Amino acid sequence: MKQSKTFIPTLREVPADAEVISHQLLLRAGFIRQNTSGVYSYLPLAKKMLTKIETIVREEMDAIGSNEILMPTLQAAELWQESGRWEAYGPELMRIKDRNNRDFALGPTHEEVVTSLIRDELKSYKKLPLTLYQIQTKFRDEKRPRFGLLRGREFIMKDAYSFHATEESLDETYNEMVQAYTNIFTRLGLNFRAVIADSGSIGGTAGTHEFMVLSDIGEDTIAFSDSSSYAANIEMAEVKIDYKQSEVDMKGLEKVATPGQKTIEDVSTFLDVVPENIIKTLVFKIDEELVVVLARGDHEINDIKLKNALGAELVELAEDAEINELLGSHVGSLGPVKLPIGVKVIADHAIKSISNGVAGANEDDVHYINVNPGRDFAIDTYADIRFIQVGDPSPDGKGVIKFAEGIEVGHVFKLGTKYSESMKATFLDENGRAKPFIMGCYGIGISRILSACAEQYQDSYGFVWPKQVTPYDVHVISVNMKDEDQVALGEELYKTIKSYRYDVLFDDRAERAGVKFTDADLIGSPIRITVGKKAAEGIVEVKVRHSGETFEIAKEEVVDRINNIFQQI
Amino acid sequence: MKQSKTFIPTLREVPADAEVISHQLLLRAGFIRQNTSGVYSYLPLAKKMLTKIETIVREEMDAIGSNEILMPTLQAAELWQESGRWEAYGPELMRIKDRNNRDFALGPTHEEVVTSLIRDELKSYKKLPLTLYQIQTKFRDEKRPRFGLLRGREFIMKDAYSFHATEESLDETYNEMVQAYTNIFTRLGLNFRAVIADSGSIGGTAGTHEFMVLSDIGEDTIAFSDSSSYAANIEMAEVKIDYKQSEVDMKGLEKVATPGQKTIEDVSTFLDVVPENIIKTLVFKIDEELVVVLARGDHEINDIKLKNALGAELVELAEDAEINELLGSHVGSLGPVKLPIGVKVIADHAIKSISNGVAGANEDDVHYINVNPGRDFAIDTYADIRFIQVGDPSPDGKGVIKFAEGIEVGHVFKLGTKYSESMKATFLDENGRAKPFIMGCYGIGISRILSACAEQYQDSYGFVWPKQVTPYDVHVISVNMKDEDQVALGEELYKTIKSYRYDVLFDDRAERAGVKFTDADLIGSPIRITVGKKAAEGIVEVKVRHSGETFEIAKEEVVDRINNIFQQI
Repeated sequence: MKQSKTFIPTLREVPADAEVISHQLLLRAGFIRQNTSGVYSYLPLAKKMLTKIETIVREEMDAIGSNEILMPTLQAAELWQESGRWEAYGPELMRIKDRNNRDFALGPTHEEVVTSLIRDELKSYKKLPLTLYQIQTKFRDEKRPRFGLLRGREFIMKDAYSFHATEESLDETYNEMVQAYTNIFTRLGLNFRAVIADSGSIGGTAGTHEFMVLSDIGEDTIAFSDSSSYAANIEMAEVKIDYKQSEVDMKGLEKVATPGQKTIEDVSTFLDVVPENIIKTLVFKIDEELVVVLARGDHEINDIKLKNALGAELVELAEDAEINELLGSHVGSLGPVKLPIGVKVIADHAIKSISNGVAGANEDDVHYINVNPGRDFAIDTYADIRFIQVGDPSPDGKGVIKFAEGIEVGHVFKLGTKYSESMKATFLDENGRAKPFIMGCYGIGISRILSACAEQYQDSYGFVWPKQVTPYDVHVISVNMKDEDQVALGEELYKTIKSYRYDVLFDDRAERAGVKFTDADLIGSPIRITVGKKAAEGIVEVKVRHSGETFEIAKEEVVDRINNIFQQI
Repeated sequence: MKQSKTFIPTLREVPADAEVISHQLLLRAGFIRQNTSGVYSYLPLAKKMLTKIETIVREEMDAIGSNEILMPTLQAAELWQESGRWEAYGPELMRIKDRNNRDFALGPTHEEVVTSLIRDELKSYKKLPLTLYQIQTKFRDEKRPRFGLLRGREFIMKDAYSFHATEESLDETYNEMVQAYTNIFTRLGLNFRAVIADSGSIGGTAGTHEFMVLSDIGEDTIAFSDSSSYAANIEMAEVKIDYKQSEVDMKGLEKVATPGQKTIEDVSTFLDVVPENIIKTLVFKIDEELVVVLARGDHEINDIKLKNALGAELVELAEDAEINELLGSHVGSLGPVKLPIGVKVIADHAIKSISNGVAGANEDDVHYINVNPGRDFAIDTYADIRFIQVGDPSPDGKGVIKFAEGIEVGHVFKLGTKYSESMKATFLDENGRAKPFIMGCYGIGISRILSACAEQYQDSYGFVWPKQVTPYDVHVISVNMKDEDQVALGEELYKTIKSYRYDVLFDDRAERAGVKFTDADLIGSPIRITVGKKAAEGIVEVKVRHSGETFEIAKEEVVDRINNIFQQI
């Protein structure tokens, strides 16, 4: 494409409202423009990138026998009422009425639509398994849209849905999807991890992985092993440590005054005891019951793990008033000793390792010392309910845990029968019995990948695209459009290189050289060919964007050199 | 793709609610399913076709230097208020509020969004012309969705917008677009015409063509020449006939009683006079003024031509009460003789040819005979305001007019400065003066093309796809999946033919032969390869869907024969 005929509105200034580098550069290099909060137009460069990303996704989906379809954006409210999500989804679900006052959702995802489609059309186990996918614009009315395409209100997703007669069949497709996703993100050159994630309230055989691109701006924290492929969202990372009961002699329980000492740190300093030997005591409201939850002073309680450990629906911290009514004291002096009868105690496994520890006495400004689990208080359940920490052993037994921030770009999920049961979608099995479909769903954030790539592939001058996703492979620049030789050679190279099936951008604009070079660096094509003063001699300059390397060559060598460079990068 | 792994829910019955053949067959052959009125899911076969159609459209758009972008579906109401369409568009515009109670439209078209984008980013004539396009899902809340994809509420469009500094530049791009559209519909093999259309209220340099696929179910009527490429929507087709004043002697004006004779037909019979000599008199309300409009009894007044001839905004038939107040009589006895002072008379050119004609006397049940234009009444304006008729000379002077019904699949339109003026979108010209962009817009109904193809490419067994759009090129059928030879040879051919870059569907289902053949005919792939009883000998049957021709060949010859057939069809 000739640059004079396309639309690449580059900016010299960093836009004030763009917080992260990917968002800044996508605006500055003329890839996207915001229409309204969280809603963007993809300009020609971004659209070309989206097409390349989508092609890779389609190839990998097709390779595992997934069938492309296209379902509608407008989704009848009735379907969402069947699944229960019309209420449950909350204000993020965009709702619209048609001219006949019928309610519709703008699809944020398509479980309901695809389940109703299959419910109506597929009756026999003989036609299973089946996997369908689509690439489509989705809507989610985010409370706080931000980071450009990373958290938008209108965005592009690949979503796939699989239907099975058996758990084994779901497992098989799930594993194929994990492999396809791994192929996709590997082909995109992204630094990613497949991360064990929270499957929420789907019970039974549930399994789920998030695919995270490692990035400082990620909104999720990943715990990963320094020596294996183990990685998990810290919401989910298991702690596998065999805490032993201490063999130190138990001392006598004693009350001590701790005026104004409320936090673990306060008490640790005041009583000169390490946090590891303090019993952190919190009260949670778990499905309407108040429960005392214990962890070691150096650990943090993970409410998602707590919820999963108890198979609970709703877990939240109790209100101050509720705590006071239950235990007669306030946060800061809570503890598990001498609890009212019937109050359940859940403790993290690490509590076992405490001996002669410290805990609140359920009396404001008073703590117990020499507290020993088992002797001084009973534990109903020991469970793994704390956040994993940096330095903990990896749960797979290999290496120790490190943390990284991640951008979620994909998610695979065993839905089981959640939707097929609520929506009464059944097939007939080999014995002619109606059974609910067993389902999986599999998402990839297409527009989010664009931002994740932008975050990863840049330097201080602009983008540095890899060949898989670059909008243009080669950027030919005629420096001075008033110089006939430069114009002619620029045109010639533009046509020649294009004929070898490279995507070529030809800067034929009547702009100053500085503007052209700055724009070229911003746009970030892997190879820049500068046609300047030596045009009459047939000599041009090649610049490799990745290495910064530049050299002059004769025009006849250009295609060979491009071929070489593209083989290497 | 193996048929057992994809999703083609064919139906034996004709769905009750599908009125037209394309809709019936798209449902029966498992291409689409309705989700709710006017909203469809594209199943794998339809999605494959859409992709092929979109590829052709993209290739032709790219070839004329149009740049692909993707603008959002959610469009801020403020933009539509600027253009005035927030009110004007009426209930077909789907409207939604976000969580902050801000108003948005779901884009039915993108003039406002693209104008605001260019207004903010493009300041100089040096960057013009510029053409942008997108392929995207659009929304229009049709009062009466029907004919499947032909008139849906959620549909896929290619929409393009061009920006220019001069009218000449717009003309150039407009003509390139007309050529690109002609290429697209020609490549799709559709029987179409580029038809002169109504440019509505856009004045000045306006020009517009609709691309119509000729079809009995079309909702528009096209007037076309039997001897040239002339074609126009009958809303717009000019009548170019040089009507002469009659040289017959004028007789004396006379009143005659015509009790109960109200229609042209009534009066014609009652007075024994040909309709050509009766003056049809209607009263229109034109921009609030009541105007008498005349046409010959054998002609019909075309209110769009009337509106355009007068440069009016609003043209509608007057109410009965208004007519009675103005002329003192009712419809059936209206005429142009002795009108109240100041009432304007507009006549179709053909009125000139009337001599000693008949007209109402503005007195119920009374007509004049021997009425002569000029002598008995004055005409303010003669204009071309009637519908063209079959047999009229073609306005280009070549041949005579015929009618056909058409499905509109494309529309090119010179917008001029309609949007740039109302939205204050200007650029600086060579003299540094701010001028509004001159714009064009260009639409293609992608999903509607799918239906238009379905309407054109079918027979009594199902679809008969041409190679350009067929979901699958070749359908390989192993008749008996319990026969090892048939399974093995089917698999072998499936793989071999695929390796030659054909799209192959392999029917590996455990279904009866009849079901397989019926489905294959419905799906309509150009070539069917049947692997049956002679599989062990390496002999298969080839059926060419277009010709119905069948023959047996050895498996080694299959690829060569497919290549041959594909060259011919």
